Amino acid sequence: MNFEFYNPTHLIFGAGTLSKLGEVVSKHGSKALIVTGGGSVKRHGVFDKAVSSLDTAGVAYAECAGIDPNPRITSVKRGADIVREQGCNVIVALGGGSTMDAAKVIAAAALYDGDPWDLIGHGQENWVIPTETLPIVTVPTLAATGSEMNCGAVISNHETKVKSFVQTEALFPKIALVDPELTLSVPKDQTAYGVCDIITHVTEGYFNGADGTPIQDRFAEGTIINAIAWGKKAVANGSDLEARTQVQWASIVALNGFVQAGANPAGFPVHMIEHALSAHHDITHGAGLAIVNPAWMRFAAKARPDKFVQFAERIYGLKPERSDDLECALEGINRLEAFLRSIGCPTRLSELGIGEELFSKYAEDAALVLRDEDGNLLGRPAMSKEDIAEVLKTAL
Amino acid sequence: MNFEFYNPTHLIFGAGTLSKLGEVVSKHGSKALIVTGGGSVKRHGVFDKAVSSLDTAGVAYAECAGIDPNPRITSVKRGADIVREQGCNVIVALGGGSTMDAAKVIAAAALYDGDPWDLIGHGQENWVIPTETLPIVTVPTLAATGSEMNCGAVISNHETKVKSFVQTEALFPKIALVDPELTLSVPKDQTAYGVCDIITHVTEGYFNGADGTPIQDRFAEGTIINAIAWGKKAVANGSDLEARTQVQWASIVALNGFVQAGANPAGFPVHMIEHALSAHHDITHGAGLAIVNPAWMRFAAKARPDKFVQFAERIYGLKPERSDDLECALEGINRLEAFLRSIGCPTRLSELGIGEELFSKYAEDAALVLRDEDGNLLGRPAMSKEDIAEVLKTAL
Repeated sequence: MNFEFYNPTHLIFGAGTLSKLGEVVSKHGSKALIVTGGGSVKRHGVFDKAVSSLDTAGVAYAECAGIDPNPRITSVKRGADIVREQGCNVIVALGGGSTMDAAKVIAAAALYDGDPWDLIGHGQENWVIPTETLPIVTVPTLAATGSEMNCGAVISNHETKVKSFVQTEALFPKIALVDPELTLSVPKDQTAYGVCDIITHVTEGYFNGADGTPIQDRFAEGTIINAIAWGKKAVANGSDLEARTQVQWASIVALNGFVQAGANPAGFPVHMIEHALSAHHDITHGAGLAIVNPAWMRFAAKARPDKFVQFAERIYGLKPERSDDLECALEGINRLEAFLRSIGCPTRLSELGIGEELFSKYAEDAALVLRDEDGNLLGRPAMSKEDIAEVLKTAL
Repeated sequence: MNFEFYNPTHLIFGAGTLSKLGEVVSKHGSKALIVTGGGSVKRHGVFDKAVSSLDTAGVAYAECAGIDPNPRITSVKRGADIVREQGCNVIVALGGGSTMDAAKVIAAAALYDGDPWDLIGHGQENWVIPTETLPIVTVPTLAATGSEMNCGAVISNHETKVKSFVQTEALFPKIALVDPELTLSVPKDQTAYGVCDIITHVTEGYFNGADGTPIQDRFAEGTIINAIAWGKKAVANGSDLEARTQVQWASIVALNGFVQAGANPAGFPVHMIEHALSAHHDITHGAGLAIVNPAWMRFAAKARPDKFVQFAERIYGLKPERSDDLECALEGINRLEAFLRSIGCPTRLSELGIGEELFSKYAEDAALVLRDEDGNLLGRPAMSKEDIAEVLKTAL
């Protein structure tokens, strides 16, 4: 347990808080770039409410709409150009994880003269670490990535088919304005993928973290238990504000550092494998995770049954025969997979029409980013290219 | 669940991290005021190690030693005077909760020309809210108050016999440098009182918080379960570094906002009652809490058995007959009290030689601070002066 924790983002949470947007943004700038995704914020009136709040507070704005899922570095460049042309001095992300991730990197790229792709780090040489950004205000409209209150961003390069990420202090939003009402209109499938994303963030830290972190384990288990219980309700009835609220809070704690602090996870193998898949196929991140996570868990449980037994016991109340009871461990994984299926997530690649043609390519891409700065393989157990291909095979 | 969360303190945690002190402090100032308590840091060599690390990094220092338990506003004034005389520009707190609390207010008082007592807020008119401080680096030598990573400080005025507190953003330490090795020499009784303090911080939020916070409930329960398990080990064997590490981490999360975020507790009645006691008697805070908390819990359980039943179920595995099974709720409280006794905490006022002579005075003092800005009574249930006196009677 040797670690650092730092998260200076000021969180403002609660139903109805969107109305505070103008007041909040006005403390950080006079002209906002509003970054949005595919248009749902306009269809559901969220954009108008946001603009009206900015207007009331005397904050002008420009717009960068149309950020795609798996956001592209070309969109980042477009956003940074608008900032410069229009003289924006604060960035407001109004959307899901892709929109927030793009907005964070736009906030850095606007102050950087070179190619924005330089700012995206892991796995590439000559990474230019962003050290300053325009102030960022995140307003999530989906409970999933936790991007609203962390300093990470995942960006894709469609030219090179690389999906990579950057995580550095300068990217912490100044403010995360989180209004669960904005998620009431999220359709069932996206709600379910979000729930899967939340659970996977927690399981990655839980299963790949260091030993001897009993408090973090309880935090992780508490988050998973609630993501399952309230996720089920949010999928069943999208208008259930209490369920939306709990799922949103789970999404924040799952990846803002609270739950993982000190667990120091040795990589996020499930995410790295999913990124390699979605760099080649336009699949929703959460759906990809629903396929990869159970497959990875079965692989890892064989190497390290104890932690998976604890998962089975504490999440599902199963009674192991021994602390390394693999059968019990696998039953816990089966239950999680059954839950994901029950809320409508795919759990096999074939359901998305993905075959084994490019397995070695996915494995190679994932292995490239699933290693530390010295080239050591990451994950518990540490995963080679061959291990990754094996996991993918069991997910067919 | 409408709330804000903000905690910009940079936490550096782990055995051996004291050696980083100089490097860390040098980023925030060139001459430190080292604030210490009764001398144990000198006896155990911690002071010398700290100074040596500052020396290596080229940081000069002055010293403000002798901060008492239940730190006094006169000590704060003395510290602020040394800062001015010696030209210090960063404050290093090296000690327990009292030392850290005093150091925080010294950091504010050094930049304030009036009487430092003006800066201590709750319950007094004309509170001057501190808005700027010298940078603060906390180095706790005791796992208890959580002061290392929050923006609160409790200060006593011996002239007026008032123990009050201040909690405001400016008092967040820049850095909390938390090295569990520094707690290896803490004697059994102080270790036990610290464990009680940690548990009470969590139960205050858990029982006085809003309804509908299932994730926070799990976080709280996970912290309590571990504070009990590892607290027992740390008291049994003070050299158990793993136990010391877990207790230290529990102390941080118990009061840095992680566990309570969104629970919005309606006051900290047990703390307010204990403060009223220790303003009149020089008792260790954690020992006072061990007496007041079970008594308060029995009082509150009658008004609101459900939450206490959940506590009994999840902490002690008890099986209630109904969700409002008061007998089960009280058995959970008995178990907690028995645990506190087992580690050597007093659980009755008579053990400290305190009788009922001043009960109405304690009740009056506690009631003064156990109310919101509009004068409404706080606590769940809201507590009148008479309720407080009733709780004290059952603690005789």
